Amino acid sequence: MDHFHKLSEAEAVINTPKQEENEEEVDPERSMLHRPLLKENQTLSSNSIAVVGVGAKVSHIESLDYEINENDLFKQDWRSRSKKDILQYIFSKWLLAFLIGLLTGLIATLINLAVENIAGYKLLVVVEYIEQKRYLMGFAYIAVANLLLTLVATVLCVCFAPTAAGPGIPEIKAYLNGIDTPNMFGAAPLFVKIIGSIGAVSAGLDLGKEGPLVHIGCCIASLLGQGGPDNYRVKWRWLRYFNNDRDRRDLITCGSSAGVCAAFRSPVGGVLFALEEVATWWRSALLWRTFFSTAVVVVILRAFIEYCKSGNCGLFGRGGLIMFDVSGVSVTYHLTDIIPVVVIGILGGVLGSLYNHFLHKVLKVYNIINEKGKLPKLLLSLSVSLFTSICMFGLPFLAKCRPCEPDLLDRGCPTTGGTGNFKKFNCPAGYYNDLATLLITTNDEAVRNIFSINTSDEFHIFSLTLFFILYCILGLITFGIAVPSGLFLPIILMGSAYGRILGIIMEPYTKIDQGLYAVLAAASLMAGSMRMTVSLCVIFLELTNNLLLLPITMIVILIAKTVGDCFNPSIYDIILELKGLPFLDAHPEPWMRNITVGELADHKPAVVTLSGIEKVGRIVEVLKNTTHNGFPVVDIGVVPPMGAPNDAAELHGLVLRAHLILVLKKKWFLQERRRAEDCEVRQNFTSMELAERGGKIDEVRVTKDEMEMFVDLHPLTNTTPYTVVESMSVAKAMVLFRQLGLRHMLIIPKYQAAGVHPLVGILTRQDLRAHNILSAFPQLEKSAGNKRGH
Amino acid sequence: MDHFHKLSEAEAVINTPKQEENEEEVDPERSMLHRPLLKENQTLSSNSIAVVGVGAKVSHIESLDYEINENDLFKQDWRSRSKKDILQYIFSKWLLAFLIGLLTGLIATLINLAVENIAGYKLLVVVEYIEQKRYLMGFAYIAVANLLLTLVATVLCVCFAPTAAGPGIPEIKAYLNGIDTPNMFGAAPLFVKIIGSIGAVSAGLDLGKEGPLVHIGCCIASLLGQGGPDNYRVKWRWLRYFNNDRDRRDLITCGSSAGVCAAFRSPVGGVLFALEEVATWWRSALLWRTFFSTAVVVVILRAFIEYCKSGNCGLFGRGGLIMFDVSGVSVTYHLTDIIPVVVIGILGGVLGSLYNHFLHKVLKVYNIINEKGKLPKLLLSLSVSLFTSICMFGLPFLAKCRPCEPDLLDRGCPTTGGTGNFKKFNCPAGYYNDLATLLITTNDEAVRNIFSINTSDEFHIFSLTLFFILYCILGLITFGIAVPSGLFLPIILMGSAYGRILGIIMEPYTKIDQGLYAVLAAASLMAGSMRMTVSLCVIFLELTNNLLLLPITMIVILIAKTVGDCFNPSIYDIILELKGLPFLDAHPEPWMRNITVGELADHKPAVVTLSGIEKVGRIVEVLKNTTHNGFPVVDIGVVPPMGAPNDAAELHGLVLRAHLILVLKKKWFLQERRRAEDCEVRQNFTSMELAERGGKIDEVRVTKDEMEMFVDLHPLTNTTPYTVVESMSVAKAMVLFRQLGLRHMLIIPKYQAAGVHPLVGILTRQDLRAHNILSAFPQLEKSAGNKRGH
Repeated sequence: MDHFHKLSEAEAVINTPKQEENEEEVDPERSMLHRPLLKENQTLSSNSIAVVGVGAKVSHIESLDYEINENDLFKQDWRSRSKKDILQYIFSKWLLAFLIGLLTGLIATLINLAVENIAGYKLLVVVEYIEQKRYLMGFAYIAVANLLLTLVATVLCVCFAPTAAGPGIPEIKAYLNGIDTPNMFGAAPLFVKIIGSIGAVSAGLDLGKEGPLVHIGCCIASLLGQGGPDNYRVKWRWLRYFNNDRDRRDLITCGSSAGVCAAFRSPVGGVLFALEEVATWWRSALLWRTFFSTAVVVVILRAFIEYCKSGNCGLFGRGGLIMFDVSGVSVTYHLTDIIPVVVIGILGGVLGSLYNHFLHKVLKVYNIINEKGKLPKLLLSLSVSLFTSICMFGLPFLAKCRPCEPDLLDRGCPTTGGTGNFKKFNCPAGYYNDLATLLITTNDEAVRNIFSINTSDEFHIFSLTLFFILYCILGLITFGIAVPSGLFLPIILMGSAYGRILGIIMEPYTKIDQGLYAVLAAASLMAGSMRMTVSLCVIFLELTNNLLLLPITMIVILIAKTVGDCFNPSIYDIILELKGLPFLDAHPEPWMRNITVGELADHKPAVVTLSGIEKVGRIVEVLKNTTHNGFPVVDIGVVPPMGAPNDAAELHGLVLRAHLILVLKKKWFLQERRRAEDCEVRQNFTSMELAERGGKIDEVRVTKDEMEMFVDLHPLTNTTPYTVVESMSVAKAMVLFRQLGLRHMLIIPKYQAAGVHPLVGILTRQDLRAHNILSAFPQLEKSAGNKRGH
Repeated sequence: MDHFHKLSEAEAVINTPKQEENEEEVDPERSMLHRPLLKENQTLSSNSIAVVGVGAKVSHIESLDYEINENDLFKQDWRSRSKKDILQYIFSKWLLAFLIGLLTGLIATLINLAVENIAGYKLLVVVEYIEQKRYLMGFAYIAVANLLLTLVATVLCVCFAPTAAGPGIPEIKAYLNGIDTPNMFGAAPLFVKIIGSIGAVSAGLDLGKEGPLVHIGCCIASLLGQGGPDNYRVKWRWLRYFNNDRDRRDLITCGSSAGVCAAFRSPVGGVLFALEEVATWWRSALLWRTFFSTAVVVVILRAFIEYCKSGNCGLFGRGGLIMFDVSGVSVTYHLTDIIPVVVIGILGGVLGSLYNHFLHKVLKVYNIINEKGKLPKLLLSLSVSLFTSICMFGLPFLAKCRPCEPDLLDRGCPTTGGTGNFKKFNCPAGYYNDLATLLITTNDEAVRNIFSINTSDEFHIFSLTLFFILYCILGLITFGIAVPSGLFLPIILMGSAYGRILGIIMEPYTKIDQGLYAVLAAASLMAGSMRMTVSLCVIFLELTNNLLLLPITMIVILIAKTVGDCFNPSIYDIILELKGLPFLDAHPEPWMRNITVGELADHKPAVVTLSGIEKVGRIVEVLKNTTHNGFPVVDIGVVPPMGAPNDAAELHGLVLRAHLILVLKKKWFLQERRRAEDCEVRQNFTSMELAERGGKIDEVRVTKDEMEMFVDLHPLTNTTPYTVVESMSVAKAMVLFRQLGLRHMLIIPKYQAAGVHPLVGILTRQDLRAHNILSAFPQLEKSAGNKRGH
């Protein structure tokens, strides 16, 4: 009993400073979310906070809660759920998966259509100016057009949806890990992402629409699941089952795979990307449902491509379902081919990690610029756009005109307008400019040209080197600007350039086609930077349609990933860390075995608990003074059923902030300290209301009289939160926490005795992060060694 | 305190009957493992046992334990593990993955080589007899050759490794779910599987080498991980880290994907098969490692195929890396093609579930035959072989000879020996026998012929119908005989036959090639029977090398699986149930939310606990009288550190049977009731000894004096077993149990008070199986409704 009273006193002391701590912290956090790339989250990761912020939520980035909330009301709901409801639920899950696929496919087609037409007509005009030798006019035209397109994208991003900048994949990854970045999956990001992506890609910036498409897929999934944008939600009855974090997680996983599928026209690759790169939790049922979504996407894409073949879609319609087909080349292996394959793999790993390293530095600098306000952001985007225009237009003049081979003269060499491998640009008839072939075109077309097979003499090594250097620079400076941007295409472009250079150097020694060099090098650079394996392999298989290439692709990717992992983490992990998102890794660090959760709990401020029947005043006070999202409910002096002495203490469970606020809003107060009847509760709360989130304590008004009344928390309490014994190692506890996707984990005492408080502490995501534990326990650092250093 | 005494008394009563129960049960269980297909495990699933056999292991099929065992000694081991050790561990993990791939690839090549040569030369002789019109001699030759080959396979299976019969995939699935079927992954099954598979497949039986190859991959993985066969194990120091269930699980997952890859030459499909169909737990690191293994396999296969192209391998060497290439046909879609696609999907689902249904019945009958001893098993195999020979040889005489098309006359129509689409058989020159093309050949070749594209008039509908009916019968009667047999190929053959029939019927309405009909129908039948999705899609993509077919394949598979799921579970689940393996499903049943773990524990005999410092006599008694594998260690009257009254009870943890036996074997006894010093323990036990499993209590001799001595169990106890509170619903507890791969889960009381026993019960796999819970709580049946009925 002494122990418990001590605890209560501790709480009283602790609540006041916590409030200050919060107020001081919330604002910078808030504002950080409106930057395109959040700066390193000092409140979370700096060493200045020695005490792990346990329970105290130091950030407005909320955790998600995948635990089944077993309170009396929810139990009632399950029991009353009829067979019809269950069938309805299953049906609507599949319907949503279908709709996600359908809408993602449609939007992807829309974006493709818009980009190809805008960029295509823009380039046609430029080519015409060049034909007429009006180079300056051509440059002015392309520069202004690009600036305008970039402006649209940037203004949308800066003013309406700052979260739509960048690829969005790190935030999706974080969401599926249990971190809810605010304003991430709403209607505004969706809209801005679509229009912004069209603008940015048509502006010829060195970025892809692939990452944004993944985000678009997730936004669609989220909006469908909640019945529309936040403020205009359709509250269909059959959507009520999706109003929980678990089903939303499944929907967003579906959305991400549909997005990848739409981006690369790669249904299996999409499923695997979601599985390997994005998702933290996976179930076999999900495999099937995401597969269904991607099947729908691919059918939609296919239908539109068939429709556009007849020329109904302007300049769009070439390409077919397979984006970069290299199936035309036969692949034979010789033992000597091992050497170039290994070289490509190692180079991919080294270059990929170098790219990650420098991109990290650039993003840090950009954060400083972006912090300064909206105008600097805008100017940054525009200057990158201008630089891109200058290089794209100016560099081809440095390349020499090369004569078309005689047998190609009547097969589209040189071309002026439209697509084609041999662009005329400033050259006389019968000659082509190989650098213009790569630069005066859309990014997709550039990849298609550089992947082209059986064209070993097409590109000069000087042009390729110039192209490679240019795209290294552009790849670094473009990604961080405030427009929707994907990383896939820039990396593919860089990779294919160095691959083709390597192919020219290695030509005397091997028989591998230069186009295949480009494909393999692109794959290796992707693996070196993004560290994906199986999904990348399948995406490349589906992009290039050459099954015989698969074994080499696998080896190249494996080598590149292994090499890259020696230097630094994957680019998405780097961005996650930059954004300060508390991502929980799959594996506990080895030194986590040397510390128990009890020791962790001792280091934190004492936990704030409520009684089973609590005074309204105390609830209000607790809600106002803390930002915790769950409060353990402890009953002291209950009479246990088996007749033990009645000083037994009982950990009744965990009550959520949202439910406490609901109680206050409904003013469901009792005059005296008594247990509420079952029917009383059920009259007042529906399970639909309980599933709602996000009420704020400031919206609640409680009179002074009401403050003295009571609330019976028992029916609202999740009576079976997952618990661990205080002597459990952090490593083991973390496995439990992550595998089950928890938000709170209660620590119970090892000893069972009278007077022992039934709760030792509460653990949240922040407490289990390696960095936070090391800050609180620097002595572990030694045993951690340099395992942590990237 | 009362409560606790009551418990102890209960134990004394319970131990005696339990012993009898065990003796009576162990023998039939043991013998059951020597049947090719275990009969329905009555002790586990019959309704006669109303009480769930909690804790009491009713079967010799052991559970695996994936929990990290946190006892003092293991902790010591982690702390002392140096950086070198960790690097060594990582390196050897990759080395093992490499070796698994290498050996699986080599053995797969060996099997292919042997099968193609044995079957090839056998068929060449038969064809020669037919050329000479010596039909009866031809039949005698093929029948005797097939009988001999079947005899070899069956004798090996029956006498040396009964577990090698069948595909092995269900047992692998069970192993990865945590169920250790004995003698499954040793040297004997490996050897028998290789030779038996060669024999059975060359004998022309309707079975594939695909399933056995998966089992072979797993055997290799297991043997490599433990350093050789059980009796001749190499105890390399660096293999010590793999002597635990977690690392073995990873290795076997690797092995299974390497096996699938070797079977279908499908690296990505192999990884996905392991992920979707076989594995219960999955981590992203595993994705990468299995991918590495399959890459090695595919390189090995590729190298051998290149080598064999020059004719060094006898009749083997045709085919190339892609087994059933249909990339030569261009796929265009029309809206009208939807109808046949949907029809194929629905038919695949219906036929697949029908096949499952009838195979279930046949296997039940076979179990009765197989129980009768070795001779009936042998006779069954031989009669199936004879029946197959008769049909294979006799049926082609029923087909009419068809004239070769003029333009094919000089391109291998008709062929006599060797491969080819148009077999002459009994026909005059210039004519071919279409049924002989499908029957007088190896199974692989038959698939290749029936998948062949642009040959719309080759097969007559009569021949195809005959072929279909024959393979339906053979597919049902062949699978259960005592030889290594895979299900993939029989299903592909059945599916392709009905697909082609459908293609002929639908010909006026669609433009899809008949070969593609066969491919799609094979995929749909596989999905309808095995219920795989993504992995099947990728396997078919890698088998047929036609990327444009992917969208339709996806749709067909999705429809077939959905339809099939309406009728019965997948064929592997049916076999799992037939074998009585206690497989734990991914999802808790909805009614599991209505029962708490406390209620479950109340229904079981009281749990057998040990004291922290226990008398040797009691330990021996407990080990002899129970078959439990873990015993909770409870200390009563300890003094908790924070100064609570000293009647505190403490749940110290869980001690494993293996460790208790180790203590007894080492005779590490204390004269008086005291705690052992740390150094005492460390002198006596190494963590390597603790990792060993499988000592038996019968091997231990303890004198009467020693019986009165004491053992300090504290240092050997896993102090942090995962626990749940008694009020938790079974649904939630099951999620925890399965997600973390537990073997024991302790139930602790909700109330914290003096005199409350700190342990309510212990849950094992058997307790959480839906069937067992429903037997104990028939009232739940009502709420379960007909959800359970397959």
